Amino acid sequence: MTDLHANPIASADDGGALLSLLSPRSVAVLGASDNAVKAGGRPIDYMRRHGFAGAIYPVNPNRATIQGLAAYPSLDALPAAPDLVVISVPGAEVEQAIERCLAIGARGAVIYSSGFAELGEAGAAQQRRLVERARAGGLRLFGPNTQGLANFASGAIAHFSTMINEEAGQDGPVAIVSQSGAGSAIVYGGLRRNGIGVRYMVATGNEADVSAAEVVRAVLHDEQVRVVLLYIESLRDPQMLAQAARLAHRRDVPILAVKAGRTRSGQLTASSHTGALAGEDALADAFLRRHGIVRVADFRELAEYCQVFVGGQRPRGDGVVAISNSGATCVLAADAAEDEGLRLVEFDAAGTEALRAVLPSYVSARNPIDMTTALLGQPQIFGRTLDAVAARGAADMIHVGFPIGGEGYDFDDFSAQTGRFASASGVPVVVSANQQWVAQAFRRHGVPVFDSERAAMRALGLLSRYVRARAAALAAPAAVSAVSAVSAVSASDADAAASTTTTLDEVQSLAQLAAAGLPTVAHRLCRDREQVRRAVAELGLPVVAKGVSASITHKSEYGLVRLGLDSEERVLAAFDELDARLATLAAEQGVEHGGVLIARQHKGAFELAVGAHRDPVYGPVVMIGQGGVLVEALDDVQFLPAPFSAAQAREAISRLHIARAFGAVRGMPAVDVERLAAMLVRLGDWFAGSAAGSERDERTESVDANPVIVPRGDAAPVIVDAVVVRNAASEGTKR
Amino acid sequence: MTDLHANPIASADDGGALLSLLSPRSVAVLGASDNAVKAGGRPIDYMRRHGFAGAIYPVNPNRATIQGLAAYPSLDALPAAPDLVVISVPGAEVEQAIERCLAIGARGAVIYSSGFAELGEAGAAQQRRLVERARAGGLRLFGPNTQGLANFASGAIAHFSTMINEEAGQDGPVAIVSQSGAGSAIVYGGLRRNGIGVRYMVATGNEADVSAAEVVRAVLHDEQVRVVLLYIESLRDPQMLAQAARLAHRRDVPILAVKAGRTRSGQLTASSHTGALAGEDALADAFLRRHGIVRVADFRELAEYCQVFVGGQRPRGDGVVAISNSGATCVLAADAAEDEGLRLVEFDAAGTEALRAVLPSYVSARNPIDMTTALLGQPQIFGRTLDAVAARGAADMIHVGFPIGGEGYDFDDFSAQTGRFASASGVPVVVSANQQWVAQAFRRHGVPVFDSERAAMRALGLLSRYVRARAAALAAPAAVSAVSAVSAVSASDADAAASTTTTLDEVQSLAQLAAAGLPTVAHRLCRDREQVRRAVAELGLPVVAKGVSASITHKSEYGLVRLGLDSEERVLAAFDELDARLATLAAEQGVEHGGVLIARQHKGAFELAVGAHRDPVYGPVVMIGQGGVLVEALDDVQFLPAPFSAAQAREAISRLHIARAFGAVRGMPAVDVERLAAMLVRLGDWFAGSAAGSERDERTESVDANPVIVPRGDAAPVIVDAVVVRNAASEGTKR
Repeated sequence: MTDLHANPIASADDGGALLSLLSPRSVAVLGASDNAVKAGGRPIDYMRRHGFAGAIYPVNPNRATIQGLAAYPSLDALPAAPDLVVISVPGAEVEQAIERCLAIGARGAVIYSSGFAELGEAGAAQQRRLVERARAGGLRLFGPNTQGLANFASGAIAHFSTMINEEAGQDGPVAIVSQSGAGSAIVYGGLRRNGIGVRYMVATGNEADVSAAEVVRAVLHDEQVRVVLLYIESLRDPQMLAQAARLAHRRDVPILAVKAGRTRSGQLTASSHTGALAGEDALADAFLRRHGIVRVADFRELAEYCQVFVGGQRPRGDGVVAISNSGATCVLAADAAEDEGLRLVEFDAAGTEALRAVLPSYVSARNPIDMTTALLGQPQIFGRTLDAVAARGAADMIHVGFPIGGEGYDFDDFSAQTGRFASASGVPVVVSANQQWVAQAFRRHGVPVFDSERAAMRALGLLSRYVRARAAALAAPAAVSAVSAVSAVSASDADAAASTTTTLDEVQSLAQLAAAGLPTVAHRLCRDREQVRRAVAELGLPVVAKGVSASITHKSEYGLVRLGLDSEERVLAAFDELDARLATLAAEQGVEHGGVLIARQHKGAFELAVGAHRDPVYGPVVMIGQGGVLVEALDDVQFLPAPFSAAQAREAISRLHIARAFGAVRGMPAVDVERLAAMLVRLGDWFAGSAAGSERDERTESVDANPVIVPRGDAAPVIVDAVVVRNAASEGTKR
Repeated sequence: MTDLHANPIASADDGGALLSLLSPRSVAVLGASDNAVKAGGRPIDYMRRHGFAGAIYPVNPNRATIQGLAAYPSLDALPAAPDLVVISVPGAEVEQAIERCLAIGARGAVIYSSGFAELGEAGAAQQRRLVERARAGGLRLFGPNTQGLANFASGAIAHFSTMINEEAGQDGPVAIVSQSGAGSAIVYGGLRRNGIGVRYMVATGNEADVSAAEVVRAVLHDEQVRVVLLYIESLRDPQMLAQAARLAHRRDVPILAVKAGRTRSGQLTASSHTGALAGEDALADAFLRRHGIVRVADFRELAEYCQVFVGGQRPRGDGVVAISNSGATCVLAADAAEDEGLRLVEFDAAGTEALRAVLPSYVSARNPIDMTTALLGQPQIFGRTLDAVAARGAADMIHVGFPIGGEGYDFDDFSAQTGRFASASGVPVVVSANQQWVAQAFRRHGVPVFDSERAAMRALGLLSRYVRARAAALAAPAAVSAVSAVSAVSASDADAAASTTTTLDEVQSLAQLAAAGLPTVAHRLCRDREQVRRAVAELGLPVVAKGVSASITHKSEYGLVRLGLDSEERVLAAFDELDARLATLAAEQGVEHGGVLIARQHKGAFELAVGAHRDPVYGPVVMIGQGGVLVEALDDVQFLPAPFSAAQAREAISRLHIARAFGAVRGMPAVDVERLAAMLVRLGDWFAGSAAGSERDERTESVDANPVIVPRGDAAPVIVDAVVVRNAASEGTKR
């Protein structure tokens, strides 16, 4: 393995230092046990059985030897400062242990002990004290309440899962990073059963100091790591993960992530499991998507879908060819391909000819290719078919379905041919099989195998989307650094900030958005009838009239809106009414009288809502949704962590249900999605940028543009109503 | 096993006769081979190894013995007429073989041979000839192009899959019915690996005579069958399956079905696999749902989810309790429960108390129950927890997650406790586990095991929805018998029928729907200004005016619509314009002048579309969707095979995306979904009934009511525009 302690890319402080802790040259075990099945005994046993060449220092005041190694009465008695100290003592003794680690100059500590933040506020306070002490002394902490970390390249195994007994470690291209200790071991077990090697397995537990995101960033500095598998319940430092994702994309190392606590029930459960309340899942989803991180559902999927990413084959397009010995599998594969948004390749004349040349006459040269009984006793036809399919570049990906095999099928041969083909062609190939012995034959040749056509096709779908998302993420602007600071606003700071916000009225809000370069409705604020006449002359008819007051958000509920005014006479009458109504409201309820807004009336095909807010976890986020008062109820909304690219905006728009109606239909032209995307990008750039912008003394806290009228054809979307909230923050609360 | 030849419930001709063919007392094999790995040799080998007690007659003119049994030179030479003849000869010899079967009085034939409808029209014609001859002689045919059928109760195995070699047969409560031979064997293999016994495995192949639906109906007459697993690519006789489903529901025997060819790609592939074009998948889905058939995705899911149905435990509600030794699994289980629409039970004070009494102090008595390390060395806590959870009836279902097990966990004990608990309590329990040895421990005690929390929770979700769908299906009206005949309309008949249809104009259409008891807009047809004045007086203002002509469907494109007429003067002006416009159109384009419709103007919260049509496969179907011209583009549509119950209508409405906005929101009252459902039920009853109604000389072919204005609050939906197509069919084309 690479010597990470001398690794130039690992020397920077953006992860290199932590990486070297994952490859310790010496490990002390505090609370070491002679019993290899106890937590304090297992790492010693594992390290010895996995050939760890560094020093192992069992620390136990009651024994001279531990598992045959010389034991030390205390950390202070060690012959040298260890890189890593495993702390396997009762929770109450941890603080003292940390002091000793600091005293001897250890660089990292893995705290197995529980009894901290997961038990409530007292434990959390204790945990904070540990971190303060450790940080002051330059000691990094894993845990507490963690099963630890393992390096299967060096055999430095400071992880106590029994799974390492069940499936022996083997170095490989995968790094597992998990907030859950059990989770790290479950994924490890799944990978090992699939014959995939693992280099790092790190459980971060309570994350008092080192977070999962920081570990992800660190392992990406190891150039042998080709895939990172991540399990999180709460994301403490999204900007660290965003930074890691950029590093990963530069190296084409996919990050597959499970973010559990997706639902309200799951979030409540997670909060009692890890002590942190997860944010809204739609934001987590948008964040992962924005940064090209592949989201999967659970431990099983992490281990399963890792298979298709680890080989390094990447599709150049979305065309898939399916081959099977079963007609039913051809049907199921075709269904699954369409579900995944993949395209079943249609062979052109030459492609069909090439296939006919290798297939028996009774096999149709169409996709999916139903081999029927062609392969019985003639395994060579299989490889020739793969070559013929790939030769003309028609197949970006290949699905091979062997749902059932028996006498007459030579799977040793099929699998060897498949493995050779995938390596030589660079074309991703996945296999679906129901029988273990068939699956094992393919796995022996490094071919990804799944237990259904759907799972295999989903693997190709994930891979294909990863390729696109990676390109989009590399093209997207980097998150502004201020965003990171924003995300660190604590609850009390947020409260302080909230007390200084100002809600702008409609005229001010529209002016703000127009100044930001966003398309707003043409309008005039009128205080008298003469101004109204001029407004009508300038804007044309019809217009709408609205009573303006920053104190009133829902104008229609106060009778302050008049629509479809199609003559100057009617506009003047409406002005008089609204002016009088505002005067009454001002007198009776003390609301501000902001004048009467006369605005051009827009009639578009769709009413959307567009907004932006600053999420305490994910930073600035732009929202687009099916609009009007029903926007929450309809829940047809997409989020975009800002800033983002036009491609990412288009992709988000395409995920709206209402977007199905954006195409040309019944003689009506399509919606110009480019223009809508450009508007979102502009909003995102401005909103994210304003946090670190030149207006140092204030910033926009939120934007709620609803409705945004979206026309069909060659016309721009228009914001016709908006509420902007500004924060005139003092220096103390400003980030 | 039951003697089905003397089984009273099997003696009726609604499946009993076919059932006895699935339990033949004697089997002849035409084309019998001495080689047990050839298709003509396997059934003989399988029957002997599975202890078939009936007569086996190998037929082969070239051998005196086959696999040690006396062989016969021809069917005519047999000592007695066999119940079933397996035909394993080249396709060209099948016709002759059928003649011999008829001559000796065999009751059924299983045709392995291929070369029929799957190869095109010539083969299809040959296949039709076989069926005509067989039917005339009272011989039932399975196949051609089938792997056959197997009865593992009697050992009568006329199926040639190699899977029977790999996983030995064992009688059990499951019947597998599949159009695909490979499919039948794949599901069989999956069940056997999960330790589940199979009674029937029937592959129907080309279904020249016996269809999958007919086999399903037949096996439901065997009272030992507790679950039916079905794989179909095209459904040839849905009404037979509907009839089978009613029988199944009376016995509480779930039917789990895969309908492949869901997507356009899949349907095209299926048409080349089975020769039949599948209908629209949304209709297939609606049909299965209407009849309480549980739809799953693929072979793997059939075998997996069968586990939770086969035990007979049924939940009384949707409340689930999750228990695990891993916090992460608790989070994933909570997420999965919410995804499945299940309710995580909240324990009341007494329930919490009961749990506290059995749990160690460091385990919280909340749901999901995170046992942490409580079970290490104390397996008895597990059973006590199950009992405490179930004692108060709080848990309708239980999920147990053991994502990882190792030293200190006694899974033999846990699994025995779980099995005992499920049997005694009747509460469905599912387990999720990642390690094979853990899964096997639970399977040994008949506990369903899944490889992820999501899969386990989905099993409970399917079970819970099955219980509701079964109740709804039992309460729903039986499909009218005429529907079955309608579905048998051949393409040429349909063409003939189409030539006699009449499109009614708007006034006639509304009248037709009003007569059917549906809520239509109040309106008057006016031919002169006096009628207009009377209409205004009677209807009130505002109104809309529309030019009526049966020749014009899209009135607004012809400028024939005037909205928002709020004075008598304006209404009269609109009348004059439309009257003149129609006169011009009549003179210039020869369109019919149907007068001017004056209708009350309704302003509702939502515009929906409601329709009905007669599908050639599924019969009368009612449709509801998000309306207006975008109904196809938005694709927010649900179908209901008619007739159906109000509960089924409500359920379909709730699946519309737009229905999310039907609740009370922002001070606006909710939509009265009951009234909308009642309208759909009425339409379904009328539309399905009219096929067999008293008006013998005509029927309604289709209804397109769009828009249907749906208000919020205490008001009914109103059909404001409609097109009805009637069929004045001659006796010759009428069904």
